[in-house]
Amino acid sequence: MSDRLARVALSRLSEPGDLRLRRVVRELGAVRVHDLLREEHDVRGVYADVAERLRGLDPERELEQAAGRGIRFVCPGDAEWPDQLAALDAAGDVNGRGGEPLGLWVRGPLDLAAVTDQALAVVGSRSATTYGADVAGQIACEAAGAGFAVVSGAAFGIDVAAHRGALAGRGPTVAVLACGVDRAYPAAHRTVLDYIAGTGLLVSELPPGCAPTRLRFLSRNRVIAALSRGTVVVEAAVRSGALNTAHWANRMGRIVMGVPGPVTSAPSAGVHDLIRRGEAQLVTGGADVLELVAAVGDHLAPVPRGEERVDDRLSLAVRQVLDAVPVARPAGETSIARTAGLSVHAVEQALRRLRGAGLVERVDHGWRRTPDTVSSPEAPAS
Amino acid sequence: MSDRLARVALSRLSEPGDLRLRRVVRELGAVRVHDLLREEHDVRGVYADVAERLRGLDPERELEQAAGRGIRFVCPGDAEWPDQLAALDAAGDVNGRGGEPLGLWVRGPLDLAAVTDQALAVVGSRSATTYGADVAGQIACEAAGAGFAVVSGAAFGIDVAAHRGALAGRGPTVAVLACGVDRAYPAAHRTVLDYIAGTGLLVSELPPGCAPTRLRFLSRNRVIAALSRGTVVVEAAVRSGALNTAHWANRMGRIVMGVPGPVTSAPSAGVHDLIRRGEAQLVTGGADVLELVAAVGDHLAPVPRGEERVDDRLSLAVRQVLDAVPVARPAGETSIARTAGLSVHAVEQALRRLRGAGLVERVDHGWRRTPDTVSSPEAPAS
Repeated sequence: MSDRLARVALSRLSEPGDLRLRRVVRELGAVRVHDLLREEHDVRGVYADVAERLRGLDPERELEQAAGRGIRFVCPGDAEWPDQLAALDAAGDVNGRGGEPLGLWVRGPLDLAAVTDQALAVVGSRSATTYGADVAGQIACEAAGAGFAVVSGAAFGIDVAAHRGALAGRGPTVAVLACGVDRAYPAAHRTVLDYIAGTGLLVSELPPGCAPTRLRFLSRNRVIAALSRGTVVVEAAVRSGALNTAHWANRMGRIVMGVPGPVTSAPSAGVHDLIRRGEAQLVTGGADVLELVAAVGDHLAPVPRGEERVDDRLSLAVRQVLDAVPVARPAGETSIARTAGLSVHAVEQALRRLRGAGLVERVDHGWRRTPDTVSSPEAPAS
Repeated sequence: MSDRLARVALSRLSEPGDLRLRRVVRELGAVRVHDLLREEHDVRGVYADVAERLRGLDPERELEQAAGRGIRFVCPGDAEWPDQLAALDAAGDVNGRGGEPLGLWVRGPLDLAAVTDQALAVVGSRSATTYGADVAGQIACEAAGAGFAVVSGAAFGIDVAAHRGALAGRGPTVAVLACGVDRAYPAAHRTVLDYIAGTGLLVSELPPGCAPTRLRFLSRNRVIAALSRGTVVVEAAVRSGALNTAHWANRMGRIVMGVPGPVTSAPSAGVHDLIRRGEAQLVTGGADVLELVAAVGDHLAPVPRGEERVDDRLSLAVRQVLDAVPVARPAGETSIARTAGLSVHAVEQALRRLRGAGLVERVDHGWRRTPDTVSSPEAPAS
């Protein structure tokens, strides 16, 4: 039996994000774990008494049937497997769930690795306001226009607004589902899901036919975060699943962004809380988002400007900090603040933005310019 | 001639925030500067040819006339002079304006130093939305209820909403004007200004009778910031004067806070920009504000809570960081992050909030608990 077939069988047997299974697979290999389980061996307490179920499975036939419905199984080792999912193995767990997926069931014409090479997650509340849905759609549209794949969960509210925005921006969009990619959930989204399956990708850890459950939604969120370079939370009430996605993204060191809203609006409370706690950076639209997630220097958010005024100089703060960061020997924040003539507080924030844009890096106990981003004033433009 | 009378005369002669005048007064004293100018000496280029104007002034009579209208002149050396204004001398200048005022003209029954010992500035756009005005009023009301004087500029929009909110919270409110405290500007605010004069304080650098100008508004903003422990910006378009107030507050190391709003609302754009650039901390209401500006441990913002959920543990991040900060030898952010099991990014933000609450302090190259705030678990409660 091949590694792929063993993974297909284990994928049918297990719940997504089962960390104990993931660990023994990493140690022993999928084939060996499959065979041990099938021979009724207890693999460190993972899935005892499943031999009969395993023997009843026919992963080869399962792959054939899936292929007949335009569904393929992608797993580590495949060219289409996105490298960035491996970050999940070091991202810990939530209630025992976590780790790189055994594999992903994929439906759609695009290459998963290629399309998520530059991907942005846009997630948020199911019970979004029109304000939130509008902003999510607009950010997704601008990200798509700038060459980003938009990843989300196809749920009501912010998720579907993000997918639709990406489609409007003529960019690829990836819906990561908590059920089989042959199912329409929510049913009201059948048309948009079919459209995404025809132009983008539907993705799930769960084999075809599986129904969504609350735990499957939570496991799904980690895949959304792991596929994406950054995650934008548009509206999220205090207990929203979108905060769970942001949490996973933070654990993997990805960029987490939050769109503010009225402090009187419950769907914005979770986002404000993320920003207050330093777990998300405030963004006001696509330009801010692209500045944070884009490759070095690709996108720089326009500084909002009124007429020229005395305090316009403030908008230079980030540039001042960049100028104060040394090229060679790293300097601490206090030293940079002194050079820039700014408060340590402002410098810390500016450094975080500059790091997000890839222009500075933290080394040892200080900061320096990211080597390839420093242009020599003497060098002629090529 | 007394120092007070010399300052009254110079206050009539000069524009508020004239830094060159401030500097020679600091060096030579107000009386000497007054006398030199009166004798047509050129005091380093400050106000040449003003002798005749000075000789025409009668500061003693001016004080008497003012007193007849319930107005007094408060200046450095008076018990009523707020110590915190001295911070302006080290806060630099904007277009040559800055420095501690020569004195302040005050109208109202309260003691200026006593009432601003615990003061919060709430400022924002003249063209506020009802959303902004509601939030400003609510924050001012809660701050007043918690014993803070609310300082603002009596302008249309956010300012007057803040004054009214403070009055509704039965707290003192201080209006710092860009014209004489005997004038009603804007005229539509005559009633509320008279009410503040009867229950709180009207304050101005400008002598009675003076009219407001654009530069006087800018100079006024620094006094609002300097009187207050923190400044909340509620709505501010990109070129709003409220950003100038925030700028002054930052220069003095005061706490600057911003209330977010819809990203589609122009009056919130300036606030979002402040938060994005790390020049203001996001606050969603009175509880957040009080947590940041109140004395050690007085107020702790309630963490918004839904039902108990997996990600509820996130709300413990700040507490985790506090627990990880050493009591004696300071530790760096990376070390604290390791101890707390959190990202350096989250730790930096948490430290900032803890510093705002006075619970930690930055020393040399690290952080430690603020000495008096560490309770020994062994010590019995007194």
